[in-house]
Amino acid sequence: MDQTATVTAQQALDAANEAAFLTNNLWILVATVLVFIMHLGFATLESGFVQKKNTVNILFKNCMIIAIGLLTYFLCGFNLMYPGDDFAGGFFGFAGFGLSPTEADLTSAYGDYTYWSDFIFQGMFAATAATIVSGAVAERIKLESFLIFSAILVAICYPITGMWHWGGGWLAEMGFYDFAGSTLVHAMGGAAALAAAIVLGPRLGKYTKDGIKPIPGHSMPLAAIGVFLLWFGWFGFNGGSVLSADAAGVSLVFVTTSLAAAAGAIGAFVTGYILFKSHDLSMVLNGILGGLVGITAGADQMLPGSAILIGLIAGIIIPFSVVFFDKIKVDDPVGATSVHLVCGIWGTLAVGIFGNMAGMGQLITQLIGTLSICAFSFAFSFGLMYALKVTIGIRVDAEEEAKGLDEAEHGASAYQGIEAVAYNYQVK
Amino acid sequence: MDQTATVTAQQALDAANEAAFLTNNLWILVATVLVFIMHLGFATLESGFVQKKNTVNILFKNCMIIAIGLLTYFLCGFNLMYPGDDFAGGFFGFAGFGLSPTEADLTSAYGDYTYWSDFIFQGMFAATAATIVSGAVAERIKLESFLIFSAILVAICYPITGMWHWGGGWLAEMGFYDFAGSTLVHAMGGAAALAAAIVLGPRLGKYTKDGIKPIPGHSMPLAAIGVFLLWFGWFGFNGGSVLSADAAGVSLVFVTTSLAAAAGAIGAFVTGYILFKSHDLSMVLNGILGGLVGITAGADQMLPGSAILIGLIAGIIIPFSVVFFDKIKVDDPVGATSVHLVCGIWGTLAVGIFGNMAGMGQLITQLIGTLSICAFSFAFSFGLMYALKVTIGIRVDAEEEAKGLDEAEHGASAYQGIEAVAYNYQVK
Amino acid sequence: MDQTATVTAQQALDAANEAAFLTNNLWILVATVLVFIMHLGFATLESGFVQKKNTVNILFKNCMIIAIGLLTYFLCGFNLMYPGDDFAGGFFGFAGFGLSPTEADLTSAYGDYTYWSDFIFQGMFAATAATIVSGAVAERIKLESFLIFSAILVAICYPITGMWHWGGGWLAEMGFYDFAGSTLVHAMGGAAALAAAIVLGPRLGKYTKDGIKPIPGHSMPLAAIGVFLLWFGWFGFNGGSVLSADAAGVSLVFVTTSLAAAAGAIGAFVTGYILFKSHDLSMVLNGILGGLVGITAGADQMLPGSAILIGLIAGIIIPFSVVFFDKIKVDDPVGATSVHLVCGIWGTLAVGIFGNMAGMGQLITQLIGTLSICAFSFAFSFGLMYALKVTIGIRVDAEEEAKGLDEAEHGASAYQGIEAVAYNYQVK
Repeated sequence: MDQTATVTAQQALDAANEAAFLTNNLWILVATVLVFIMHLGFATLESGFVQKKNTVNILFKNCMIIAIGLLTYFLCGFNLMYPGDDFAGGFFGFAGFGLSPTEADLTSAYGDYTYWSDFIFQGMFAATAATIVSGAVAERIKLESFLIFSAILVAICYPITGMWHWGGGWLAEMGFYDFAGSTLVHAMGGAAALAAAIVLGPRLGKYTKDGIKPIPGHSMPLAAIGVFLLWFGWFGFNGGSVLSADAAGVSLVFVTTSLAAAAGAIGAFVTGYILFKSHDLSMVLNGILGGLVGITAGADQMLPGSAILIGLIAGIIIPFSVVFFDKIKVDDPVGATSVHLVCGIWGTLAVGIFGNMAGMGQLITQLIGTLSICAFSFAFSFGLMYALKVTIGIRVDAEEEAKGLDEAEHGASAYQGIEAVAYNYQVK
Repeated sequence: MDQTATVTAQQALDAANEAAFLTNNLWILVATVLVFIMHLGFATLESGFVQKKNTVNILFKNCMIIAIGLLTYFLCGFNLMYPGDDFAGGFFGFAGFGLSPTEADLTSAYGDYTYWSDFIFQGMFAATAATIVSGAVAERIKLESFLIFSAILVAICYPITGMWHWGGGWLAEMGFYDFAGSTLVHAMGGAAALAAAIVLGPRLGKYTKDGIKPIPGHSMPLAAIGVFLLWFGWFGFNGGSVLSADAAGVSLVFVTTSLAAAAGAIGAFVTGYILFKSHDLSMVLNGILGGLVGITAGADQMLPGSAILIGLIAGIIIPFSVVFFDKIKVDDPVGATSVHLVCGIWGTLAVGIFGNMAGMGQLITQLIGTLSICAFSFAFSFGLMYALKVTIGIRVDAEEEAKGLDEAEHGASAYQGIEAVAYNYQVK
Repeated sequence: MDQTATVTAQQALDAANEAAFLTNNLWILVATVLVFIMHLGFATLESGFVQKKNTVNILFKNCMIIAIGLLTYFLCGFNLMYPGDDFAGGFFGFAGFGLSPTEADLTSAYGDYTYWSDFIFQGMFAATAATIVSGAVAERIKLESFLIFSAILVAICYPITGMWHWGGGWLAEMGFYDFAGSTLVHAMGGAAALAAAIVLGPRLGKYTKDGIKPIPGHSMPLAAIGVFLLWFGWFGFNGGSVLSADAAGVSLVFVTTSLAAAAGAIGAFVTGYILFKSHDLSMVLNGILGGLVGITAGADQMLPGSAILIGLIAGIIIPFSVVFFDKIKVDDPVGATSVHLVCGIWGTLAVGIFGNMAGMGQLITQLIGTLSICAFSFAFSFGLMYALKVTIGIRVDAEEEAKGLDEAEHGASAYQGIEAVAYNYQVK
């Protein structure tokens, strides 16, 4: 009788632990779904910010990137990023091609979620890193060159730098902290975007002797849809990075993430108005994204007030950064470098200023970490782009750029019926 | 041995309760994400229903409202709405600025979810209330005036009326019932929208001596996207209002919410056809929203048949209400007063007709509750708008209205490339 | 003391089981929300793929279908599909009109989720089946005829064929396997679409003596939004079909679903390029959907490598199938038959090739199952469409088709402001 009671209590505890495991795993999967839809956010944001004549092209790229990202992460990325103790050095490790979970990997023995959940959540992150680049090189890059560039970036560069911290590499050992990827995803992707935009050169007619010509995006509704979807997905991006459904952890992350995004909008609104004397929607949209990127490194450890300050500063940074990159003639049609690189570095440093272990030591560690990854990503991307440039070429010719990539690369138009008027007129 | 068994059993029970807490808290967070995306729903719905020349403006407002809503709710709204026993009177209470949870507030000691989850879920609701107004005053209000109005409405008016019921105030004591906010969110926001639209006056050229001129929205796809996203988010709005993941409760709410929305579509479809002899998409879209608003007050206690009836009547109300407001020359470009105010009142009364405590007594209580809150919100909003009118002004001038707020307030256009045809023609 | 310990252990186990039930039920509800948003996916996909002049019409249909689908499933569909042992034969059964759950149906006594969760999850599936047809018959069908057709299809045909497998009918007894509905939802809907498109005939001017005229869709951004939302929703469609939050099960389904969709994009990209020498976005979009439909029948039992192969083949099938249907002059404006019927059959057969019980016997069973359901759905739909044709008529007249259904059926235009140029020109 006693024994029965004892056994039953153990069984009950096991059942309770299994119930918690169910919930923890479920949250990682729901977060995966939310991170997935960020790819629609990027697709619509970038579509809205490019010219009408390049819309099919940018949609096409965004469809291919999620496909390439997931498949290469399956092939080698996951095992490069999480090589496991047997295969890892501080800078590089590899556990082999493909996936081969054991039975235990699919149960709570693996941790708070299954091996499959781990893979698919991380795979969505990997694809996100690649998609950051597509906006910065939009409207002039050759489709094939871009796809090859993205595939190699997401298959090799992202998982290697990711391993340095999340895979237990040298930055992890050094005490570097990047909760959900201000550096590992965003600044890494932003540095790649910067390198690619430099090698590629600006769009024709952007920087003229008469000054900088604004090339407004073709659809603000699409751009706004993109930003809201990205914020929506960010609840999974940051919330899922708790790596369990831990109540205190995930709910704090939701609060800091939301407040930073809101403060980013305010920061960009006010700064944009002071600088440009107008209510610039694209600045507010990028301010929200800047706030989100900024809070990502420390979303699990900020007080609400700190989160607001981090987001506000990120929002203030955006208009200055956009102007700066235009001044040095780096042409980035969607502002990806300002949002992801600059605010990603800011967010990473903010952990050393406002975080749990704030202090000069931590700040320097943060600086080393973010600069190392940005430098590696920049150099890798610069070299890769340059290699593509001197081999298959990376840029469409001037005539194709003028008539638009939709016609040149796809023989298609994003919209039908709107141009009918022009055709009717020309016929007459 | 016995003692060990006893302790283990208690531990097992604690672990089981903790697992349930994880799930309950997770649902509040997932519901928060769903309510968040309703702001994209409002943004796209309102964009679709306004003219092309005011699209940037309405997107800008919707981006700022979510930011302002969350930040003011952090600053004072949450503590005005939930002042706690020490600070509350029946009509007003305040627990101080900012947030200061204790350690216990982040554990199951706080209830079925954490303090942070409570704040962020409620904060998303607050921002929703403010955004209802933006559609009704679209196409003619000054941006700054609108932002000031919204900030004060969401910071003060919404939490005070909210406290009356959800914060344990006089309506709660009286037995008033509003499950998820047919009155507290929707009719409150709708009454504010009505007051604002009256003070502001109709759009130029809407009501002429030759009759009422229809001003159709510029993009039905955007409007439809908005309605689907709002329905999507309503699963969180109503489902999350169970305030736990209680299986019987949340699943019933999903059924009643869905069936009411579906019946709202049917009601508006048939009524719209009878009245206008056409298949009017905007009526069906608003019929769905009317059904959703209508079920919100009693979504936790209706049988499916009652839910269908409530939604059907809401759908039937919509076309009549839209015609009525046009007759009395209250110009509401998106139908926000019909959807949120009229159907909100209907849904609140329906609790007294079909709900658990249906009867004349409950019906009168429901009537008192909804009219009190509508009256307070209307008076507050009327006074605030009037004060803004006589100080900084609330309306753009006629020339700006004619050329559109996008150019007047933002110096921008929502779409690029579509107008090229016209320019080419004019050049020739 | 002993007794106390024993009771507590049992109580703890009950609490643990209840916590797991909470989580399992919650996942079915979250999956329901995800499947719901697939209706926005269909609405935007189909809108994007039709001409501008038929946009209001296709949006209107998609709004009505979800309403009709849910209400008819409430009225009779659910009880036709899951008649229960007392009422079921192998081919047909019916448990009566409306819903009448017992108290026990709302607790864990019903299984891993409540009766209400079961109904609303299944109801969203039912509405999905009906919406597949709307794309194939777009741009020429009469609105009323379509709505009547859809209502009867979803009320009777879908639940009867569904019962054959998921309701425990003759296909279930035979060992047929269709995890989440490659056949029961997609091929069933695709066969109905094929029958309807045949009876209806092609759009005017599509197949001329000079060859096949491409009629490109009017908005690629809308189409792309649709595909991403469908993929997003598919996590609920397939993931929810595990019918619990089982960690190993749901996480595997997420991996196979994602990899198949990604491989579908690659398959269609490469095949489209080989066939058409262009980067065809619509092929890639349909390739993703083909991959998703293909994996659906076996998403719970494929290894990642098999999932990739299934998706890749589905993606390769798409361009060939689209060309084939055009060759036999079946006009399907959105490619619904290729995606849902052809890839649905492929996915069902793939269970017999790559699944747990792969082998010639299983393959033949799969073939019998999918052909039986396709044949029934085709015959039912053909007969129903034909009956409508000879009674109230199914096709708008040529003049209405030429000017578009938006004007003919709705007296409205999807977009305002864009056409102003044309009107101005004609006035002059």
